[in-house]
Amino acid sequence: MTATTNLEIKKDMAIIVKKFGGTSVGNIDLIRNIAHRLTSEYHKGEGLVLVVSAMAKTTDELFSLAYGISKHPSRRELDMLLTAGERISMSLLSLALMEEGIPSISFTGSQSGIITDEKHGNARILKVNAFRIQEELEKGKVVIVAGFQGVSTSKEITTLGRGGSDTSAVALACYLKANKCEIYTDVDGVFTADPKLVEKPKLLRQISPELMLTLCYNGSKVLHPRAVEYALKYGVEVEVKSSFTFAPGSLITNKMTENNEENNMEERKVTAIAHKNALLRYTFPLNVKVLKTLSDWYYEIYKSFVNEGLLELFVESKYETEVDYFLQERNTKPISKKGDLAFVNLIGLGLGHDPAFLATVMENCQNFNILRSFNNEQSIELLLPDQNCAAAVKTLHKIYIEEQV
Amino acid sequence: MTATTNLEIKKDMAIIVKKFGGTSVGNIDLIRNIAHRLTSEYHKGEGLVLVVSAMAKTTDELFSLAYGISKHPSRRELDMLLTAGERISMSLLSLALMEEGIPSISFTGSQSGIITDEKHGNARILKVNAFRIQEELEKGKVVIVAGFQGVSTSKEITTLGRGGSDTSAVALACYLKANKCEIYTDVDGVFTADPKLVEKPKLLRQISPELMLTLCYNGSKVLHPRAVEYALKYGVEVEVKSSFTFAPGSLITNKMTENNEENNMEERKVTAIAHKNALLRYTFPLNVKVLKTLSDWYYEIYKSFVNEGLLELFVESKYETEVDYFLQERNTKPISKKGDLAFVNLIGLGLGHDPAFLATVMENCQNFNILRSFNNEQSIELLLPDQNCAAAVKTLHKIYIEEQV
Repeated sequence: MTATTNLEIKKDMAIIVKKFGGTSVGNIDLIRNIAHRLTSEYHKGEGLVLVVSAMAKTTDELFSLAYGISKHPSRRELDMLLTAGERISMSLLSLALMEEGIPSISFTGSQSGIITDEKHGNARILKVNAFRIQEELEKGKVVIVAGFQGVSTSKEITTLGRGGSDTSAVALACYLKANKCEIYTDVDGVFTADPKLVEKPKLLRQISPELMLTLCYNGSKVLHPRAVEYALKYGVEVEVKSSFTFAPGSLITNKMTENNEENNMEERKVTAIAHKNALLRYTFPLNVKVLKTLSDWYYEIYKSFVNEGLLELFVESKYETEVDYFLQERNTKPISKKGDLAFVNLIGLGLGHDPAFLATVMENCQNFNILRSFNNEQSIELLLPDQNCAAAVKTLHKIYIEEQV
Repeated sequence: MTATTNLEIKKDMAIIVKKFGGTSVGNIDLIRNIAHRLTSEYHKGEGLVLVVSAMAKTTDELFSLAYGISKHPSRRELDMLLTAGERISMSLLSLALMEEGIPSISFTGSQSGIITDEKHGNARILKVNAFRIQEELEKGKVVIVAGFQGVSTSKEITTLGRGGSDTSAVALACYLKANKCEIYTDVDGVFTADPKLVEKPKLLRQISPELMLTLCYNGSKVLHPRAVEYALKYGVEVEVKSSFTFAPGSLITNKMTENNEENNMEERKVTAIAHKNALLRYTFPLNVKVLKTLSDWYYEIYKSFVNEGLLELFVESKYETEVDYFLQERNTKPISKKGDLAFVNLIGLGLGHDPAFLATVMENCQNFNILRSFNNEQSIELLLPDQNCAAAVKTLHKIYIEEQV
């Protein structure tokens, strides 16, 4: 079947950006399924922009190929290599749509006009100039865009870091003034805690962008924190939903929900519990050399603190070899390195400013050996030994979410 | 002149809640001025609800009268005494409006249906049941409400704590589904830092509720943090503006501003700098008795942390005598008490997760003896000796706000 242009599409059509993650495009059947489900939306006359990640495991495979050749591969070449992943998934999805009789065209990050800085492997978006997408939408085509990638101002291919496709999608939604940005994933939406860990996780039908941001910066993997930051900054409405069922998921919005007035108006509630385990703490003296190293830092820093004049950086243990190499290259030595740490984070508006609430949390955590706690506007953050992390999440979820009416 | 009902007022009129703080109703001339300025809005047919604080200094005077009689006055009787303050200002404003020919009626917190918990001196709103206000608005009257006060479920008079009138106003705006909640004050709006401290403070025409919340919880006195929390939770649009000029001030909203797309899209900027000085740190062992004391805590806790198994509470030095007495009553002894501390807080979306940015901040703070730093989604928080606070705010404001384009 050849693709024909849908003549009914208007210039002022509603645009929806949909992002499909690696597990959602993990094999040909899944890709066909997505194409098939999109036909009715296309025929309604909506402008569809599909942002795709590489097929599940592709990026990991490409990584291990590179590391098989070089222990410390050039970051520029790594970006060149990794961006092949989305080329595969995007062209396959385009072919699947054409098979459904829908005209479509795929674009790389560079072709879609995602302009970034020069930081290979973890680039930030400077601007979006997606006129080519707009032109193709106006011709009635579905546009498929490679997520995770961009092009620097000096025309080098860059990648946005792990989870970067979410950020690509939100950035395009913003540029295109899309009605909505839908993030399709392998779960039903945003849960009150990791469903693999707690007994009765609840699906959050709605969550405010600021709580979502805190949730994502504190270990929830459902959405990339930079994408939420972007959505918050530019007012893009995001929905997280299942790519298997296409059922309504979790809406990230500040819109008032009905019947809120009936509740205890100033009550402070735990909206969700995030956690991050397998963390490693590097402690450094706070001197000029360390600050220089910090400003060159490539790897994701989970948390940073200054404590009694020392700089503490928490990073994921899996990056240990790379971080050690990076530090060695710069001749920067940590004073100490401590592994097996975790953070558990109770998230909800105003929580950290309620002494009575804090007292109950500390009471309920007596067996978990809380090493530190930081409390702010919307969270109570607990540092504890990794071995107590799962039990703490389970206990706190039971008390503050499951047992609440 | 006697007051007559404006017959043009419709049932579905636009309602605006306006709150006037203590300095705005500080004397009879100021009160007359407000009444006069409100006439045109009234005649446009808008439903006006005016929430007033006690006249400036009244609350302090009533406090010192009470403390003249008793060193540790009963909190219930204190609330009874203090709530006289708003009765005076609200009835005076009502009289001034009648003089302008505008029908008006004043209500206490209890009459306006602000239902709170039992925590005298620092009560939280449980619900609002403001049907009497609604009835009077429908009759075409301007309704004046005593801010800062409520009534508990056991019919006791309570107060909402310092700055509580802001919270009263936002809560009523929410109940009445008001179009807007305007907070009139003695400054022009929200500034990038304390105008008394920095050379070139900038007025923020717009700020997102989540950054405003962080700003208010970290020392900005322009708005009560609980009011912002409330506005954020229930989607009330708030504007902070001058009661002397009535000119447009700072809008607290998430609405997208124009031309944002032209900017460096993922750039992280300092929106404002907050600070809080004259702080005292109490350090406690983390045991059952201390947690019990924490859950009974009456005074505002500025910040709390757990650090290496010890509980640290930062409170304003001015509360030292009262806190010491409170601890003594409960036989709870701190391990240590340290004064002359301050927090400076750089506020902006994503700031705390950018290692290169953190490096520049620490570099620029080398002379300020930073004791600790906590970095999260929207702030970099610095603990430092009080004596360095003003210089740090000035320096950081110059570098991160004044010198930015």
